[in-house]
Amino acid sequence: MVQTYKFSNAATDFYFNSSLKELGKIIDRKHTFFITDQHIFKAHEKKFKGLNTIVIPAGEEHKKQSTVDDIILKLIQSKADRKSVLVGVGGGVITDLTGYVASVYMRGIRFGFVPTTVLGLVDASIGGKNGIDVGVYKNMVGVIRQPSFILHDLALLQSLPQKEWQNGFAEVIKHACIKDAAMFKELEQHQLSDYQKNKTLLADLVRRNALIKIKVVQKDEFEKGDRRLLNFGHTIGHAIETQYALMHGEAVSIGMVYACDIAQQLKGFAGKERVRSLIAQYQLPTHINFDAAKVFEVLTMDKKRVQKEMNFVLLEKIGKGVVHPIPLKRLESIIKKLQ
Amino acid sequence: MVQTYKFSNAATDFYFNSSLKELGKIIDRKHTFFITDQHIFKAHEKKFKGLNTIVIPAGEEHKKQSTVDDIILKLIQSKADRKSVLVGVGGGVITDLTGYVASVYMRGIRFGFVPTTVLGLVDASIGGKNGIDVGVYKNMVGVIRQPSFILHDLALLQSLPQKEWQNGFAEVIKHACIKDAAMFKELEQHQLSDYQKNKTLLADLVRRNALIKIKVVQKDEFEKGDRRLLNFGHTIGHAIETQYALMHGEAVSIGMVYACDIAQQLKGFAGKERVRSLIAQYQLPTHINFDAAKVFEVLTMDKKRVQKEMNFVLLEKIGKGVVHPIPLKRLESIIKKLQ
Repeated sequence: MVQTYKFSNAATDFYFNSSLKELGKIIDRKHTFFITDQHIFKAHEKKFKGLNTIVIPAGEEHKKQSTVDDIILKLIQSKADRKSVLVGVGGGVITDLTGYVASVYMRGIRFGFVPTTVLGLVDASIGGKNGIDVGVYKNMVGVIRQPSFILHDLALLQSLPQKEWQNGFAEVIKHACIKDAAMFKELEQHQLSDYQKNKTLLADLVRRNALIKIKVVQKDEFEKGDRRLLNFGHTIGHAIETQYALMHGEAVSIGMVYACDIAQQLKGFAGKERVRSLIAQYQLPTHINFDAAKVFEVLTMDKKRVQKEMNFVLLEKIGKGVVHPIPLKRLESIIKKLQ
Repeated sequence: MVQTYKFSNAATDFYFNSSLKELGKIIDRKHTFFITDQHIFKAHEKKFKGLNTIVIPAGEEHKKQSTVDDIILKLIQSKADRKSVLVGVGGGVITDLTGYVASVYMRGIRFGFVPTTVLGLVDASIGGKNGIDVGVYKNMVGVIRQPSFILHDLALLQSLPQKEWQNGFAEVIKHACIKDAAMFKELEQHQLSDYQKNKTLLADLVRRNALIKIKVVQKDEFEKGDRRLLNFGHTIGHAIETQYALMHGEAVSIGMVYACDIAQQLKGFAGKERVRSLIAQYQLPTHINFDAAKVFEVLTMDKKRVQKEMNFVLLEKIGKGVVHPIPLKRLESIIKKLQ
């Protein structure tokens, strides 16, 4: 069943708990180009039979301009035109790249997503942010443009490595921290394996998280206010992710613990130990030894910096995130003491 | 005096017949980055003193991704952030590049233009289309996003080469052909040198042409209807421009003559000789020997192609352009007979 959510300039059709087989009803195969990575293509080769498919190397290190250039050349060679549709089948890297290419090819063609990771299902595919990294600077280039549709096929998670399950749960925990104390409790009462075994439990959690993200984006698509809450754990997270070759979820997990530490200092937040313990319960890291000077340097190039301040996301309590501007000088000294 | 024109998602402030000196009132120098090319920088070096300026090599051949990459790296190094503003000072290449970089840097920052060519003043800077070429394919990548402001300083035209004056008048003639029979007559009664000598005559013509473009774009920003008229002369024009190293205005001039020829065949258009003669009067070419097969091949990758048809712009009479879909097969045989 399709549910349509409107954003400021466009609407996205969500097919929750659906199946790849339903895609035929949504798009016209002939004018559709599928973009996926080598891992997914290999794991689901049969499903791509007879489809125009562009396969790129797997991994965040390929979320860069040269990959965009390659995809664009292939689209030109295949005579993709303004009526063509791109469908990204993959995790966040694939959906970010697909959305970006579709937004700039011929000044914008339609696109849709089939997320194949927990992270993609609950977070990365939703909200229209797309783009690429530039060197160590994450998502430095991109646009905000909504996909025409997002189709969920939870069966695709069967081939997902354990690491990637954990990775996705970092964003689930983030959503709980900033918006949903009840979900935080539910997570405390379960283990990752419960969700892996119980399809109904998982489908409910995925939809609940997608809805949290959808609602935040609907309220604030262009990130002037509430949407910034979704950056909880991401400011320090992004600054350490590339430098220490962490997975996104690992970096965000560590970033959330540090953000709780700062929230404790600046806001008297009392839930740091509960957050840390939930992160550990889902097999995610809570600490790293980092080079504070280097982290601060990368962090000053974060998009959330506005001149001499950083809009930092803190927690007032579990389930309630707040944006708190911190002067860079102050932030520098806080970060140096974090370790 | 500023005049504001609203587009679907944004408004552009137009400062007609103004001066670069007024810029200080519009932008905050400290957070502004000027993008210009070596020729303009050299011709007006004093005017860039004390400004953050990124200078790129001059020429359409630099309107490509690697130039975008270079500008983005410089913005990162200069710590440009979401409050930064880019100002393109130059012709169509500079404004197309500046608008594109600003649209994707940190998912979109503000930008404005100071056109330094007739083509830029009457056409290229207006309407929010921006982007880059990919190989021989013109404007294959880009977005539609409106500048915050456009400032006209006609004094900048003093250093404009004669070739570039002619180049700009191709678009003026185009506007007359598709939208303004009275202006067509005015042009017939003057020479290029009249406009070069008489500032009031020129200022009137520039504003009149800017308004033609503004109104067409306001009615149809995303090119579903009327905006396609602006492609008069551009379909064959684009296909020969890169291949025969023509200036844009030269290619469009030749393209307009061929389009008149096709209009005569398909629509009984009677004004072909008048158009050809006006183009020649403004020192622009009306013919080239081209490789029809190669031109047709490039043309099938034109963004105006939709599957098996091309939306071709023809004239019913002088001052009235119409969009006419032509099946590719038919177009191929027409083009082969054009020479």
